Amino acid sequence: METVAIVGTGLMGASFGLALKKAGFDGKIAGVSSPAAIEEALDHGAIDFAAPLEEAVAAAGLVYLAQPISRIIETIAKIGPFLRPDALVTDAGSTKVRICEQALRNLPLGQFLGAHPLAGKEKRGAREADAGLFAGRPYVLTPVDAGQMETAAVREFLKWLGAIDARVAIMSAEEHDRVVAYTSHLPQLLSTTLAATLAERLAPGEVRISGPGLADALRLAGSAYEIWVDILATNPGPIETALDAAIARLQELRSNLNSSQTGRTFEIANEVSARARR
Amino acid sequence: METVAIVGTGLMGASFGLALKKAGFDGKIAGVSSPAAIEEALDHGAIDFAAPLEEAVAAAGLVYLAQPISRIIETIAKIGPFLRPDALVTDAGSTKVRICEQALRNLPLGQFLGAHPLAGKEKRGAREADAGLFAGRPYVLTPVDAGQMETAAVREFLKWLGAIDARVAIMSAEEHDRVVAYTSHLPQLLSTTLAATLAERLAPGEVRISGPGLADALRLAGSAYEIWVDILATNPGPIETALDAAIARLQELRSNLNSSQTGRTFEIANEVSARARR
Repeated sequence: METVAIVGTGLMGASFGLALKKAGFDGKIAGVSSPAAIEEALDHGAIDFAAPLEEAVAAAGLVYLAQPISRIIETIAKIGPFLRPDALVTDAGSTKVRICEQALRNLPLGQFLGAHPLAGKEKRGAREADAGLFAGRPYVLTPVDAGQMETAAVREFLKWLGAIDARVAIMSAEEHDRVVAYTSHLPQLLSTTLAATLAERLAPGEVRISGPGLADALRLAGSAYEIWVDILATNPGPIETALDAAIARLQELRSNLNSSQTGRTFEIANEVSARARR
Repeated sequence: METVAIVGTGLMGASFGLALKKAGFDGKIAGVSSPAAIEEALDHGAIDFAAPLEEAVAAAGLVYLAQPISRIIETIAKIGPFLRPDALVTDAGSTKVRICEQALRNLPLGQFLGAHPLAGKEKRGAREADAGLFAGRPYVLTPVDAGQMETAAVREFLKWLGAIDARVAIMSAEEHDRVVAYTSHLPQLLSTTLAATLAERLAPGEVRISGPGLADALRLAGSAYEIWVDILATNPGPIETALDAAIARLQELRSNLNSSQTGRTFEIANEVSARARR
C-alpha cells in the first residue's frame, strides 16, 4: 500500500498514523476529519495531508475508519463507489456485529475487515496520539471467513500490525461482541453505577472519606457518554446478558455476605484479578 | 508520650511507626506482633523493640491497635488491667461501630479513640511500610463525645497526626460505617463481582481481550478475603443497604440502556469520578 486514508483523526486514528510511520511506512497518509481534528493531526505529524472522503478513499490501498461507531456505519454506506478494487477497508470500532453487517450490505465481499484495537487512554484527541498505543495490546480482527485472511491486502495489513507490535486475535464479530460485553462494557457500567450510587447516597464531602482504591474503581466512570451511547446502542443483547449475570452475582453475594461462599468468591476473584493484570 | 506500643506491626502499624519517627518522635516504640512480623518491623526500623502485650501496654502513653478488626476486638478485652490511666488507646480498624462498642464495654470511658486511616496499598506487611502512607489521606476519628477531643492525650495524638500530614475528619462510628459502606465496601464488592462474573462467563483466554480499563476495574478484586471477612462481619447492615442501592441502579440502567436517562447517569458519574480523583 502506498497511500493510507485515515477517516477520523482522533486518538485512535492519529495514533495509527504515528505508529505506521514509526514502523517504517514511507507512503502517504491522508486524513479525513473535522477541520479542528485535521489541524491537530497535522501538527502531530500523524497524517501528511487532509482530503475530502471521496478523494482520500479513491487514492488509498488501506482505508482506516477510526470514527465513532455510528459514523463508521454512515461512512461505510458512502465509500463503495470510490473504493479501489485492491483496497482493504478496516475499522477501529468498539463493537463489531452492526458494523460488519453494514459492510456486508454495502461493500464488495471480502474488502472489509472488521477490527477492534483494545488500546486507548483516558484523554482523547490527536494531541494525545501515541505511536506506541497498540504495542502489546490485543487487536481483534473479525474476518468474514478464513480465506479473507489470505488475501494480499489483508496480509500486508497483518504485516503492519506485527510491525506496530499489536497482538492479533481472530474471532467472529458475534464472539467479539459477547466477550467485550464482559471485559469492557460491564466494567464501564459497574463503575458508572458505583459513581451514580455515591452521588445518590452520600453528601459530596463524604465521597472524600475514601482510600486510594476508590479512585481506581471510579476511573472508568469518567468516560464520555458521547462514545458510550453508540456502544450501548450497537450491543444491547450481550450487554443485557452481562448485566443480568452481574446482578445475579451481586444478589447472591448480598444474601451470603458472611458465609464461606463469599470466601470462595474472593478466591476466584483474586485469580481473575491477578491474571487480568499480568 | 514517651513510649508508643504498636500492636500489630503489618503495613499499617509499621507505617505508623516509621511516620512517627520521620515526624520527629524521639521516644521508644514497642512492637507487639507475631515473631515474623516483629522481625520485619525491626529490620525496617519501624519499632525499637519487641515486647509482650501486657508489658508494652503498661509502658505506653499511646497504644496503637493495627491488627485485623477481630483481633482488635480481642485485644481491647485484654488490655484494660495493664493500661496507664493517662494513656490513650486508638486503632486503625476499617469499621468502627463494633470496635467502639467493645471499647465502651471494656475500657475506661474516654480512654479509647476509634480511628480509621484511609490509607494503604496493595501489598501487605512491614516490608511494604512507608513513612508517607498517611500523608494527605483522610484519617477518621470517632470520639465518644466532643469533650474527648480536648483531653491532653488526644491533643498530643492530634499533634502527631498533623505532623504526619494526615487529614483528620471527625464523625460518629455509625456515620463512618455508613459512609465507608459506599466509598470502600461497595467498590470492593463490585470489583469482586466483576471478576467472579468474568470467571463464570468467559474462557480464561477471553479475559485477555480487554482494554487497559479492565485492569483498574479488577484491582480491588485482588484484595485478600482474610482482611475482608472481618469487614463484612462487622458492617453487614450498611453494606446490605449499599448493595441494594447499587443493584437497583444496575437494574434501572439495564432497563434504560438506550434512553437519554443513561446519558444523564453518565453525566452524574463523570462529575463524581472527577471529584473523587482530584
